[in-house]
Amino acid sequence: MDSETARIEAFSDGVFAIAITLLILEIRVPSNPAEDLRAQLLRQWPSYVAFLLSFSFIGIMWINHHQLFTHIRHSNNNLLVLNLLLLLGVTVVPFTTALLASNVGHAGAHLALAVYNGTFVAIAILFNVLWRYASTGNRLLGKKFDEHSVDRISRQYAYGPLMYVVCFVVGWFSVGASLVLNIGLAIFFALPFGAKHSRTPAP
Amino acid sequence: MDSETARIEAFSDGVFAIAITLLILEIRVPSNPAEDLRAQLLRQWPSYVAFLLSFSFIGIMWINHHQLFTHIRHSNNNLLVLNLLLLLGVTVVPFTTALLASNVGHAGAHLALAVYNGTFVAIAILFNVLWRYASTGNRLLGKKFDEHSVDRISRQYAYGPLMYVVCFVVGWFSVGASLVLNIGLAIFFALPFGAKHSRTPAP
Amino acid sequence: MDSETARIEAFSDGVFAIAITLLILEIRVPSNPAEDLRAQLLRQWPSYVAFLLSFSFIGIMWINHHQLFTHIRHSNNNLLVLNLLLLLGVTVVPFTTALLASNVGHAGAHLALAVYNGTFVAIAILFNVLWRYASTGNRLLGKKFDEHSVDRISRQYAYGPLMYVVCFVVGWFSVGASLVLNIGLAIFFALPFGAKHSRTPAP
Amino acid sequence: MDSETARIEAFSDGVFAIAITLLILEIRVPSNPAEDLRAQLLRQWPSYVAFLLSFSFIGIMWINHHQLFTHIRHSNNNLLVLNLLLLLGVTVVPFTTALLASNVGHAGAHLALAVYNGTFVAIAILFNVLWRYASTGNRLLGKKFDEHSVDRISRQYAYGPLMYVVCFVVGWFSVGASLVLNIGLAIFFALPFGAKHSRTPAP
Repeated sequence: MDSETARIEAFSDGVFAIAITLLILEIRVPSNPAEDLRAQLLRQWPSYVAFLLSFSFIGIMWINHHQLFTHIRHSNNNLLVLNLLLLLGVTVVPFTTALLASNVGHAGAHLALAVYNGTFVAIAILFNVLWRYASTGNRLLGKKFDEHSVDRISRQYAYGPLMYVVCFVVGWFSVGASLVLNIGLAIFFALPFGAKHSRTPAP
Repeated sequence: MDSETARIEAFSDGVFAIAITLLILEIRVPSNPAEDLRAQLLRQWPSYVAFLLSFSFIGIMWINHHQLFTHIRHSNNNLLVLNLLLLLGVTVVPFTTALLASNVGHAGAHLALAVYNGTFVAIAILFNVLWRYASTGNRLLGKKFDEHSVDRISRQYAYGPLMYVVCFVVGWFSVGASLVLNIGLAIFFALPFGAKHSRTPAP
Repeated sequence: MDSETARIEAFSDGVFAIAITLLILEIRVPSNPAEDLRAQLLRQWPSYVAFLLSFSFIGIMWINHHQLFTHIRHSNNNLLVLNLLLLLGVTVVPFTTALLASNVGHAGAHLALAVYNGTFVAIAILFNVLWRYASTGNRLLGKKFDEHSVDRISRQYAYGPLMYVVCFVVGWFSVGASLVLNIGLAIFFALPFGAKHSRTPAP
Repeated sequence: MDSETARIEAFSDGVFAIAITLLILEIRVPSNPAEDLRAQLLRQWPSYVAFLLSFSFIGIMWINHHQLFTHIRHSNNNLLVLNLLLLLGVTVVPFTTALLASNVGHAGAHLALAVYNGTFVAIAILFNVLWRYASTGNRLLGKKFDEHSVDRISRQYAYGPLMYVVCFVVGWFSVGASLVLNIGLAIFFALPFGAKHSRTPAP
């Protein structure tokens, strides 16, 4: 029974792992040996912030994906296509991360932040669509599915898009405030308390 | 019995996952802070189109590969070599994608499009060769193979090369028409109706 | 029981494999056909040293991770977050490696070496935190855990951060001495004798 | 029993898959829209030759690795270290490939070719060392190992280094002759006849 989703998980793990590791290519190695290295490294702080944010968000998304597929045990064409759409969002993140990092402090910061947070809004919505599709009427869940866990995931995932929408909207008014909100969101997800609100414990 | 093809699938999953994720490196981050970011982003629309097309096609190819190997259960040297040829085609896609994206609107567009669609023609033919090799006389299929499913795959896969050949030929006359056809093909593959014609449901 | 950590291991394997393979991108292909190739290749010896060091250290870290998860059999949110922090350290290595390679022989060498060794100090500490969390009170170990092995790992891992701290401190006084120490450390880890002190044999 | 080598295989598959896919990054997308695209594409034929050669050799190495680990069932620290040395060779290939491609037709061609073929000599030797270590006295093989197969692998693998040494030596006299030999070697490995001489059929 497990084998039906095994390769979906393996392929998805691969895409998540590559996307999260490619993020580092966005941080440039200072190339001017004549200038003070410390100054050059400090100046590109937006790259570090963007890297850490995206690493956290992709990490959280992988954990969420992992949790969903402890419940989803059957596969069909629609699930494969929905999962590919989700992975499309994930593969875009290294680009939006580099876009954000290179525009903080410049005129394009608002637009770059909107693209950045907009991508996460889209991914969070796709997570909900995939889960609703798989769980509605117990369509693709395992036989021994736990109704309580399924309901809790459905409730918790509904907040995901909302959180990123807040970051998205705030970003139009203040880039700094939105970045602080994004950092807070990443920390919130990592804390045990936040985890309870954004994911379900392993069965 | 499964373990004979397990590592082929794992290695192939890796190559598919990396190729589909490397596509994003083709989209350049606008680097001129003095110019309007929106204008710079909009100007590189061919990169987005090429990225989305290639993501869709590699995604569909992965789904097809996945389906084939739910039927193929045995392995031999010829299968390994045919599978490597197939993966050779897949690893070339990030290059042909970048080639297409950087030539739309320039004199080289016809040639770039021919290389782009030609690669997919070759991959689609290789899919047929691999499948015919594995399925003829039930050579490498599982014991409980479903003759009906096998015949359906053989019939459906025969259309794949034809579809890309049409895009290839149209591209010599009109780059725009071929791109529209390519987009239509990607959407067709993703729809449940198109899926029926290009793949077989999981057993 | 195994399946609880299977995807953590698969995802971690992916990140380790990608990070170790991306290291090669740091070594530049000499691009001046007019100059003697041998001279150009020899001149970038710091790139080879940095590549070999980081390959060894990531390789050792993968072996350690592999060994830990022969004992850890259960998972929870804290383990997932701790493992992500560990992988964050791993994905940073291609950057710190390129930073080191491009600064040896320049004014920034001390700082680059501090960042390089500092990252490994952090990773080594995270290995201890993850292992203590999983093993304390047999929290996430398998039922048939071997108390002797667990204690030995705990003792051996405690030396890891110390070794990198020594490299870190020596680097502030002498870049050359620290690089020699780093090379010695990599060889020590690879030898059977060093292995006994840094890892535990497979059960 | 299998699980002892499962993660070694998964990690190795990852490194092989990434190295083989990164090869494509070596082929540059022509960036001069003013010049004829066909002429620009044709001019970089050494990149295509180097790409196809390295894809073939890494593919063959993966097949060989796959075959070895159908026999190797136990693991220890020495095997892990030997396997890492083998993977070190594999990760270097994208660099040596780009080095070869950019130097064919220039003064550095002989040296680039020596580095290129020298890397494969080293990898082929490491394959022999790993296999001898694992198979001598049936040290790490499965219980039901087939003495005939083991002996055949040992005999066949001994030729691998020799073949690359011939390419290496010929390269010092004639770059063209060595490239033709390399291409012949890649085709030989792919043919069923060559396969018999370089690998053993799956058990």
